[in-house]
Amino acid sequence: MLLHMSTWAEIEQFLERSRTIVIPIGSNEQHGPIGLLGTDWMCPQIIAHQAQESADILIAPTFNIGMAQHHLGFAGTITLRPSTFIAAIEDWTRSLVTHGFEKIFFLNGHGGNIASIEAAFSQLYAHASFARQPAGFALKLSNWWDLEGVGALANRQFPTGHGIHATPSEIAVTQWAYPESIKSAAYTPQIANSGPIREAHDFRSRFPDGRMGSDPGQASVEKGGELVKLAAESLVRELEAFSRESAPLGPVSASTNNC
Amino acid sequence: MLLHMSTWAEIEQFLERSRTIVIPIGSNEQHGPIGLLGTDWMCPQIIAHQAQESADILIAPTFNIGMAQHHLGFAGTITLRPSTFIAAIEDWTRSLVTHGFEKIFFLNGHGGNIASIEAAFSQLYAHASFARQPAGFALKLSNWWDLEGVGALANRQFPTGHGIHATPSEIAVTQWAYPESIKSAAYTPQIANSGPIREAHDFRSRFPDGRMGSDPGQASVEKGGELVKLAAESLVRELEAFSRESAPLGPVSASTNNC
Amino acid sequence: MLLHMSTWAEIEQFLERSRTIVIPIGSNEQHGPIGLLGTDWMCPQIIAHQAQESADILIAPTFNIGMAQHHLGFAGTITLRPSTFIAAIEDWTRSLVTHGFEKIFFLNGHGGNIASIEAAFSQLYAHASFARQPAGFALKLSNWWDLEGVGALANRQFPTGHGIHATPSEIAVTQWAYPESIKSAAYTPQIANSGPIREAHDFRSRFPDGRMGSDPGQASVEKGGELVKLAAESLVRELEAFSRESAPLGPVSASTNNC
Amino acid sequence: MLLHMSTWAEIEQFLERSRTIVIPIGSNEQHGPIGLLGTDWMCPQIIAHQAQESADILIAPTFNIGMAQHHLGFAGTITLRPSTFIAAIEDWTRSLVTHGFEKIFFLNGHGGNIASIEAAFSQLYAHASFARQPAGFALKLSNWWDLEGVGALANRQFPTGHGIHATPSEIAVTQWAYPESIKSAAYTPQIANSGPIREAHDFRSRFPDGRMGSDPGQASVEKGGELVKLAAESLVRELEAFSRESAPLGPVSASTNNC
Amino acid sequence: MLLHMSTWAEIEQFLERSRTIVIPIGSNEQHGPIGLLGTDWMCPQIIAHQAQESADILIAPTFNIGMAQHHLGFAGTITLRPSTFIAAIEDWTRSLVTHGFEKIFFLNGHGGNIASIEAAFSQLYAHASFARQPAGFALKLSNWWDLEGVGALANRQFPTGHGIHATPSEIAVTQWAYPESIKSAAYTPQIANSGPIREAHDFRSRFPDGRMGSDPGQASVEKGGELVKLAAESLVRELEAFSRESAPLGPVSASTNNC
Amino acid sequence: MLLHMSTWAEIEQFLERSRTIVIPIGSNEQHGPIGLLGTDWMCPQIIAHQAQESADILIAPTFNIGMAQHHLGFAGTITLRPSTFIAAIEDWTRSLVTHGFEKIFFLNGHGGNIASIEAAFSQLYAHASFARQPAGFALKLSNWWDLEGVGALANRQFPTGHGIHATPSEIAVTQWAYPESIKSAAYTPQIANSGPIREAHDFRSRFPDGRMGSDPGQASVEKGGELVKLAAESLVRELEAFSRESAPLGPVSASTNNC
Repeated sequence: MLLHMSTWAEIEQFLERSRTIVIPIGSNEQHGPIGLLGTDWMCPQIIAHQAQESADILIAPTFNIGMAQHHLGFAGTITLRPSTFIAAIEDWTRSLVTHGFEKIFFLNGHGGNIASIEAAFSQLYAHASFARQPAGFALKLSNWWDLEGVGALANRQFPTGHGIHATPSEIAVTQWAYPESIKSAAYTPQIANSGPIREAHDFRSRFPDGRMGSDPGQASVEKGGELVKLAAESLVRELEAFSRESAPLGPVSASTNNC
Repeated sequence: MLLHMSTWAEIEQFLERSRTIVIPIGSNEQHGPIGLLGTDWMCPQIIAHQAQESADILIAPTFNIGMAQHHLGFAGTITLRPSTFIAAIEDWTRSLVTHGFEKIFFLNGHGGNIASIEAAFSQLYAHASFARQPAGFALKLSNWWDLEGVGALANRQFPTGHGIHATPSEIAVTQWAYPESIKSAAYTPQIANSGPIREAHDFRSRFPDGRMGSDPGQASVEKGGELVKLAAESLVRELEAFSRESAPLGPVSASTNNC
Repeated sequence: MLLHMSTWAEIEQFLERSRTIVIPIGSNEQHGPIGLLGTDWMCPQIIAHQAQESADILIAPTFNIGMAQHHLGFAGTITLRPSTFIAAIEDWTRSLVTHGFEKIFFLNGHGGNIASIEAAFSQLYAHASFARQPAGFALKLSNWWDLEGVGALANRQFPTGHGIHATPSEIAVTQWAYPESIKSAAYTPQIANSGPIREAHDFRSRFPDGRMGSDPGQASVEKGGELVKLAAESLVRELEAFSRESAPLGPVSASTNNC
Repeated sequence: MLLHMSTWAEIEQFLERSRTIVIPIGSNEQHGPIGLLGTDWMCPQIIAHQAQESADILIAPTFNIGMAQHHLGFAGTITLRPSTFIAAIEDWTRSLVTHGFEKIFFLNGHGGNIASIEAAFSQLYAHASFARQPAGFALKLSNWWDLEGVGALANRQFPTGHGIHATPSEIAVTQWAYPESIKSAAYTPQIANSGPIREAHDFRSRFPDGRMGSDPGQASVEKGGELVKLAAESLVRELEAFSRESAPLGPVSASTNNC
Repeated sequence: MLLHMSTWAEIEQFLERSRTIVIPIGSNEQHGPIGLLGTDWMCPQIIAHQAQESADILIAPTFNIGMAQHHLGFAGTITLRPSTFIAAIEDWTRSLVTHGFEKIFFLNGHGGNIASIEAAFSQLYAHASFARQPAGFALKLSNWWDLEGVGALANRQFPTGHGIHATPSEIAVTQWAYPESIKSAAYTPQIANSGPIREAHDFRSRFPDGRMGSDPGQASVEKGGELVKLAAESLVRELEAFSRESAPLGPVSASTNNC
Repeated sequence: MLLHMSTWAEIEQFLERSRTIVIPIGSNEQHGPIGLLGTDWMCPQIIAHQAQESADILIAPTFNIGMAQHHLGFAGTITLRPSTFIAAIEDWTRSLVTHGFEKIFFLNGHGGNIASIEAAFSQLYAHASFARQPAGFALKLSNWWDLEGVGALANRQFPTGHGIHATPSEIAVTQWAYPESIKSAAYTPQIANSGPIREAHDFRSRFPDGRMGSDPGQASVEKGGELVKLAAESLVRELEAFSRESAPLGPVSASTNNC
């Protein structure tokens, strides 16, 4: 069920059977010689829209502009500053909470968004924490490539040259959804080099065609379809688990971290 | 040409022949018993996407969440605060200006956005004005219903019961684009009442089903198609005029105003 | 009754008979060859102060700096950024609401303020809307030239050359109030040209003496007196209607808008 | 010379002979049983306007709403938050600097403003300091009661019961300027008590009629006239010294401070 | 008792016997030829840590970066903007209030912080004042050199050449605490000159070695020890008085001010 | 070399041989039954101060309050909101850049800070990216437990019960530095449970004594000493590599990410 294709009365009815909603969130930024500028927001949108074809889940409109300052050296990139991004996530969340949504699931399509989404979660939770009251809602971030099984599939599909930006996996997803918009190019080198991410001027000098460690030429409609199908199924399962979760529950992955 | 379906190199080439870009902008908010929650951002998106089918113009991704605090009493509405909205328009604009865009055209689908879009323009221009330097870019706001001829057509199509929210004209546009999502309802009264717009609690008590002065039942796919066709043509002409405009030029409509 | 010429105890007494207050709001900006820099905040102040001479209404201090970034190319202009302006209106309003005022009426003297005042209203209402509670107050914006009958009178007084900035009507109002400060100048052309409003550099090149479409030479003390008298009477009536209004009431002007 | 009673061309001419401007700044807040709510912004306005009667100095419009959160328990008080106040001073200053003003003198009428005005100065200067460049302007704050000789005169006029809020000196100044608005009251006790300043609820319980340590009954038109005359003369001298000052000059009063 | 050297359970126990906490606050900025960059935050830290050796008081971590934009012309200076500084004090305070602290005492080591600390207090109190509710906490600022007897002692120790920045008193305090870090230098002139404080470029040209009116060569470990001992004792007494204070109580020093 | 124990002239000299600086950054928050509230800012401080004993590196004052809203349910926790935290990192960085620092290394002690530090980096870089100019500086975040070899050592020291909050490794580091402040407690269960991190109310109900997955009882002074020694050595090497790095250089770890 797509929120924007529904009436308010239909959403009111949905809220009687579920308090969970998915927000596809990404970025609009260069994706190398053949990647579409919308890749990072279209991927989670494609997967989420696919998932709701066969499950009673609700998908919000797509949050389509994210953290892309490092790509501004390439035409067509649009970015928010983190301060704006955080404020916008606050407003989206507070709007949905007003209606009674309690589990808000951000399906993310851009690695560069992760930090600022988590910062936004802290900003939202801090209101409750300062007020010594329960927030009444839970926020969850999942990257589509971290949905169960998806990373393993991508590793099998692209054992070399996956890279971390303008990857064949994300490009395959858009090729499956928009086969009429498939582009092609020659690559030099075939697999792009890697390096740190800083500001736009530095980025373009390190990564002259926009790729980071990737060989997008390996993408195909068929591989994209496999990824979308698997990701959509995993998304539905992850949503079910998130919906079922009550307050002080649920194991989290262990790591040698210091929170 | 859709920016998000293009590569950065394609946008770089576009910039050699034009410095103008269109941003469809709207709101995600209740639209009465049959109107879709996405109506206000889908209408300018539908018109802009239609226009680029037959003209060499560039359409940015859609700015889909706007000024809808007064609709928060109805499920599914998502709003930004004006402060967030203004910051986001600043960031979108500064991103595009970085690439060399000089004429940024906001095609708006929500009356409630007008004030805050204009406030954002002032915020952006103020940087240049304080620095005693030309801004190097021009911003323009047009509501799709104010494109040449569109208001007159809507008046002919809906001589009574057009109203100002959940109007038959905007619903017709979405019906034309998404005929599979047409909804129906009975209306009491047939034409909704009117009144001032304040906060959400006040709004819902004044307008119990979400309509303001409108009879959405008059909408039809055919009327929607007429509106889209005319609006798309007018948009292309308005963009041509805006693109041609050099700095100290261009008459503005006279009124008994005090600027 | 002028708030700033009263004691707190007198305001406390006023609140027992009325919950309505008027804030004159304008801008301090160039007004062409003979217009005073204070024109836009002095006009609503003059009218509001005149109105309280013969009616039991309460006038707040004047909000005298507004949205004037486009006039910064002319000496003496002072502007706020929209973000500051909105924050200030929030603070004024919240202060007055603290005391029990429920109807806050902004009598505006500057067209360029309209958008940001309305954005401020949304910012204020959004707090209530997010909290799912009534705001407990209503905000209203009226431009003095839109008070009942005033536009028609100005059209009769100045059938040509009224224009939209440094207009003979606003200059006449200040001439009536401050006849000792009347200035004179020669105009070339007699009626200034028009054009879009952007940043200060662009503005000054389009409008070299600061006027927009106006011939201020038509202003006179007598015409100013007529305008003030009529506006003051209309203001009192409009305040009475606003004060009487209870929550879900009151028709609003219809238009082919989409809110 | 009053900026708001001048044209932009007159200010342009003034800038050829001086780069100094005075901003009267105060607060709109309760001033006890007989003090006017506008006392704190009217006092510096009265003195500055008086000073320009006989000296070629330029007075900006009055910044009339200041730091008065602690007085919100008394009707009619209007306050800004410090964050808004600082942003507004930034905008006023940047506007004036755009025109070429280099010495901006804030004549303050409210002790509670001092901290936030100085914070605003730091905020403004920090832009230059981070950019490793001269700011190109100097800011100065003087309280009217600290102008040369004024404190001594007030001490002679009111050897006891001057206090620190709703003082006979500030009330006398407004009585001299607006003799038609003189109020009277009985005081219990004759001299109000003192205490710390915190939030509004605490303030009202400590200071039930709004006075702090003062006996306003000692104010008179004659004493007010003496204060205004002396303050206006001292203001002109202080402005001359400030105007003459070049960059690395000027002794500052020594104290056992640690800056 | 040092908060950061305690467990949460120990703080919970402390809160059963006291609701008062001390925050040492200062600045990290140049202090002339021999002064340490940390002088201004180390002084209140040294004194507060000394005081808790023999009294049951609680010391928070040190707020170590303050208002130092004017010192940015000298390497090693780190500053916050006032807007950041105020927001940080808000967050520290709200965190402590969440736990039940009611008396928050800022022991300040930098004159340049005073204004922005007081602005932060207003920002914090304003929330309560707008809400017409008691804040539930009280904030107090004391500079260590204003603690009872300390100024008099410094005057006896340094009858000339104390000055206001890089003073022998503050340097002596750090020399007592860190005798291994004592530096020496020759001074020309022996006592530095004075002048106004503006931005960094202006500051460095006025004060080429960073001192203001001071002769730091007079500092000694012994004098530092005397200052620390006295200040620590006075701090404990001042905290006792502050802790005992109930809401509408406590005289404040009288002055010819206008609050 | 400790910045705060140096004079400005010593820092000026340091800048002639290096443009790199380390900022220890952490959080002040509950760390379970025996962990000190300052653990997260003291750990990177301890390691950085140790490292500069034997290497010519420069350590800034410690950024001691971080992202700890989820710990506010435990007394003594102090947090910033992400918006404040980001603004503060901006100011620290801009201050240091003003002096000529080009490589700013944040040695982090709190997992909860990672997201907001990276958001701050984006905020800082965005200024350069919007301006189409090189930033002139590079920012790097390293958690002390991710320094080369440190995670492996901690795994050997604590094969079970390390957990992610109030871990034996971080507690061991503080025990080594402050053996006089070692606390003890009984644990039930011996190894704390795990779960998601949300707001403070939820956190305390999930983690009643504040630990997450850890058994702090395994900490010892000896293990702490091993960790500090190894981390300090690795820090020096990582700083050398960062200092040597020129702009478009340096491989980054590959992962199946989508940036």
